[in-house]
Amino acid sequence: MKHIILDTDPGIDDSLAILLALASPEISLEGLSIVHGNCSLAQATTNALSILELANATHIPVAVGCELPLVQPSLLAPETHGNTGLGYAKLSEPRTQPTRRHGCDFLIERIMSAPDEVTLVAIGPLTNIALAIRQEPRIVNALNELIIMGGAIRYEGNTTALAEFNTYADPHAAHIVYHAGIPTTLVPLDVTYQCVLTQRDVDRLLRLDSPLTRFIADATRFYMEFHDAYQGVQGCVINDPLALALTFAPELCDYQELPVDVDISGGVSLGKTIGDFYNYNKKPANMKVALGVRPRDFIEMFLERMEKLAQKTTQ
Amino acid sequence: MKHIILDTDPGIDDSLAILLALASPEISLEGLSIVHGNCSLAQATTNALSILELANATHIPVAVGCELPLVQPSLLAPETHGNTGLGYAKLSEPRTQPTRRHGCDFLIERIMSAPDEVTLVAIGPLTNIALAIRQEPRIVNALNELIIMGGAIRYEGNTTALAEFNTYADPHAAHIVYHAGIPTTLVPLDVTYQCVLTQRDVDRLLRLDSPLTRFIADATRFYMEFHDAYQGVQGCVINDPLALALTFAPELCDYQELPVDVDISGGVSLGKTIGDFYNYNKKPANMKVALGVRPRDFIEMFLERMEKLAQKTTQ
Amino acid sequence: MKHIILDTDPGIDDSLAILLALASPEISLEGLSIVHGNCSLAQATTNALSILELANATHIPVAVGCELPLVQPSLLAPETHGNTGLGYAKLSEPRTQPTRRHGCDFLIERIMSAPDEVTLVAIGPLTNIALAIRQEPRIVNALNELIIMGGAIRYEGNTTALAEFNTYADPHAAHIVYHAGIPTTLVPLDVTYQCVLTQRDVDRLLRLDSPLTRFIADATRFYMEFHDAYQGVQGCVINDPLALALTFAPELCDYQELPVDVDISGGVSLGKTIGDFYNYNKKPANMKVALGVRPRDFIEMFLERMEKLAQKTTQ
Amino acid sequence: MKHIILDTDPGIDDSLAILLALASPEISLEGLSIVHGNCSLAQATTNALSILELANATHIPVAVGCELPLVQPSLLAPETHGNTGLGYAKLSEPRTQPTRRHGCDFLIERIMSAPDEVTLVAIGPLTNIALAIRQEPRIVNALNELIIMGGAIRYEGNTTALAEFNTYADPHAAHIVYHAGIPTTLVPLDVTYQCVLTQRDVDRLLRLDSPLTRFIADATRFYMEFHDAYQGVQGCVINDPLALALTFAPELCDYQELPVDVDISGGVSLGKTIGDFYNYNKKPANMKVALGVRPRDFIEMFLERMEKLAQKTTQ
Repeated sequence: MKHIILDTDPGIDDSLAILLALASPEISLEGLSIVHGNCSLAQATTNALSILELANATHIPVAVGCELPLVQPSLLAPETHGNTGLGYAKLSEPRTQPTRRHGCDFLIERIMSAPDEVTLVAIGPLTNIALAIRQEPRIVNALNELIIMGGAIRYEGNTTALAEFNTYADPHAAHIVYHAGIPTTLVPLDVTYQCVLTQRDVDRLLRLDSPLTRFIADATRFYMEFHDAYQGVQGCVINDPLALALTFAPELCDYQELPVDVDISGGVSLGKTIGDFYNYNKKPANMKVALGVRPRDFIEMFLERMEKLAQKTTQ
Repeated sequence: MKHIILDTDPGIDDSLAILLALASPEISLEGLSIVHGNCSLAQATTNALSILELANATHIPVAVGCELPLVQPSLLAPETHGNTGLGYAKLSEPRTQPTRRHGCDFLIERIMSAPDEVTLVAIGPLTNIALAIRQEPRIVNALNELIIMGGAIRYEGNTTALAEFNTYADPHAAHIVYHAGIPTTLVPLDVTYQCVLTQRDVDRLLRLDSPLTRFIADATRFYMEFHDAYQGVQGCVINDPLALALTFAPELCDYQELPVDVDISGGVSLGKTIGDFYNYNKKPANMKVALGVRPRDFIEMFLERMEKLAQKTTQ
Repeated sequence: MKHIILDTDPGIDDSLAILLALASPEISLEGLSIVHGNCSLAQATTNALSILELANATHIPVAVGCELPLVQPSLLAPETHGNTGLGYAKLSEPRTQPTRRHGCDFLIERIMSAPDEVTLVAIGPLTNIALAIRQEPRIVNALNELIIMGGAIRYEGNTTALAEFNTYADPHAAHIVYHAGIPTTLVPLDVTYQCVLTQRDVDRLLRLDSPLTRFIADATRFYMEFHDAYQGVQGCVINDPLALALTFAPELCDYQELPVDVDISGGVSLGKTIGDFYNYNKKPANMKVALGVRPRDFIEMFLERMEKLAQKTTQ
Repeated sequence: MKHIILDTDPGIDDSLAILLALASPEISLEGLSIVHGNCSLAQATTNALSILELANATHIPVAVGCELPLVQPSLLAPETHGNTGLGYAKLSEPRTQPTRRHGCDFLIERIMSAPDEVTLVAIGPLTNIALAIRQEPRIVNALNELIIMGGAIRYEGNTTALAEFNTYADPHAAHIVYHAGIPTTLVPLDVTYQCVLTQRDVDRLLRLDSPLTRFIADATRFYMEFHDAYQGVQGCVINDPLALALTFAPELCDYQELPVDVDISGGVSLGKTIGDFYNYNKKPANMKVALGVRPRDFIEMFLERMEKLAQKTTQ
């Protein structure tokens, strides 16, 4: 059983990743550390608590992390995730509170308390993790694995022509994390953009009438409108759940070991994630990059697990 | 009949583009302007003259252009094109001389003397053309069309992880040319890397025993060894002839109008050619980019024309 | 009585700043947070503990902070401060230990526990302070004042042509701290390079034979050799004690309110501290910059206080 | 007798430099090449012709150069020099024409036709000279000397916090010229800002009632208003005539041989001229930089020569 911490900025697809974690018997979700990103830190914290409540999982600790990127000005994504970060979904105010530990301290303590045990899944900007590394460099060796949803290798960006949102929102944090020496798997837009959840998929979920399926439907309806308007995509790309799924189903993707860098020059390529396929720079590979995916296998698995979780939480 | 000037740094595939121009009845090759790039300016000039001599075309004027990139240090490509720029081919010293006009002045005069007539095909670093634009801005409107072999849009670079050789060798020149307002078609690695000339193709040419087919065989043998050793490609990618072919056979490619920029920030993405597919920057398209190609149609056409030219020059 | 925390990387002139703090009745030294810089974090921690022991001040807590800059590779300064960071001085191994709190947590707790009370004097790279700000943004308002030894405004750099060491060693941290909104005083090389401690000054101290005066003599002898060899300066520039002195003797300097930025572009000006005297960027002043100094007043004060401290610690 | 070509963008202080050249028996002004800068290329050309006419010097050839900087967008300075580039001065439309040679070609021909003879004085952005170098690299060795008015070494910028106008207007051209290998003298703001022409100086000139003195008074009145409003300077700084004066009176300044670079990174320090006093980069000096000046000696010389020229042209 894998011990998972999710570093997250919920966010529509972050919410789906949290739900997928709760629905997956292969893993134990040890906690969430919250970061700025899709919405403000305060909103993301509220959202995280509400989603855990929706899934009867208020025992999972939520630790509030960083409000701002390291160097870049704050960048939120209301056009993608709506003003509350959850599209058209409306969840009741959470009755629980986050822990008093700061997100970075939470990460450091959990990772250091059980060396080689924790798999960290990072599905927001990498600010919390970068800070934790600089504050306690030993987490680099104590982490079992880091799975990052982020980057666009050969694929166009979803925030600038070249850059993916999580990376662009804090490129300096990404630079720190990429080069820290952690065993890392990157899940870039190259694969996540193959994983489109369609209205038909959502309709299948809605056959089960439950707060959870209604939440998914309301959240993704907004998300689908965004994908249609901005990128001409029918359906919505659920980036973050794919990254989570790789903790227990790594066979969903094909990988390549690569030297990967991120542009922090401040020019037009700021935040571009660079895979050096021909190793022009003569550097060792610093991560495994998912470059192929079986999208329908993943979507099917996601739907089945959401159905089971909906049944379980409605009982 | 299209009036063509080739701005070129021969170079193995440049040589094939020159030969293709001479073999194509739809166009009239008005001259060559030489630029640094695959080899030194002096070597490239010698090569250009020798190739014209090989093809009985010494009446075509050759004008010597710029020896150095605008700002970047000089970058040549002996590992790709060999020390002489022509692989294992050995051509006799040319008996002709270049014109006394500088390459930039030649470009300006030819373009200004027949407004809307000249199609400029740029298959080397863009130094000559950038200088000509800054010296005589009116060529921007007087040019009929500019076709540039260069850039890597969604494709990995052939010089750095992100950058294509011609662009990386003088990114500032590319910046000037891209944003000058000339009707431009870009032919990036995304399409040229589909166009692989194989040993079998060369063997077909060698059935005609002639100086020209032997030249092609000797030059491409080196080029194929490079492609195998550096990129695991069997055969060789003939970038430049494709750009030339689009002057008379534009249907070989599919195009998309895009805002395109080039990274001159000096960071890790230096020389990256950026296509803004979703127009995040809200800028008008500044060029037509070839993103699809029918490679075998092109290779067949190339081979047929080389066969005819070989027959013609051997008689 | 001002409550002072020193963020420091001792370092020869850092040591003198610690001693000056202990010798100054106007202030209460609440603790040291240690950072990489003049020497490694481990060495700097040992040095801090040893210096406190030398001055009978082992009750002052020492908290170990960050080992590495945020983004830049590690940069130490053995040529300036010697391999141990203390020149030719040899102090016995410290018998005390640092606190178990991390330097950033120590800063956050002390600052938050007494709002508007703490004056933070930063005389090393700004990594600890930048991390503390991003982890607990409220320290920005809770700090009474931040005095930074760093930068070179109109003066040449001491690490690159333009950049001062503390700033160049972690320019991204400096960027975070400069723009955080803390009431800040900058003490750049423009003033510190006027404050030269001469051999004659040291000889005056040596008239008092004590471990403390011998330490100062041994440490500064190396430092003076560096200044002579690298910059042609006779004597040594004691940057850090000046910054500390401004907590209780601000009249030693003249100041100008300025918008100040730091170059993080990654180009040749990386780490340059930029004072916008004519406000070309139309931004409000973000700090007070010391641009004039009465050097001999400062050096005299420093010497007198060292004499008193030497007498006190020898008794 | 020195043979001088002025590369210029007149411009108020450019006009004064042209007049000083005409007033100086030690030199022979061989021609003007015009460049964008203080005003548009067209306006600068008109101004150059009008000033030559004002001084009865229409025999001096004027060659029109580059309209735009190499890479940066166009930057003109109407707030400094007025909409016509000549402040409140109104000169009649010129009756002469520029030569048909482009400015770059003019430079190349003149320099190559008399190796080691021409001293080029560059008092505008360096676009023309950079293009000439890239088009004909041999001018580097054929030039006797290049004197550049530009840069701010230890002095604050007059366009951004760090950058001087001529350098900021085309930093890439400056980069090309600085590193070309020409024997170069730089005349930065560090010395020119010591050379203030006061209203009292102008009043002395006006005791001679002539078109030339009235021109100087009208042009500098606007210039003085700018200096007062933007920089709190009483009088006006006449940068360009100082650079010209150094061709025949080098003793007006003190110099230091230095490695000098210019920031082209595109960040906040873009266009900063960097003098590496301690040679941190271990590069050889590439120019002689004027860092000291005898300002009143220069202003007196300037005034005397203007008086003589006024008398001569009024006769």
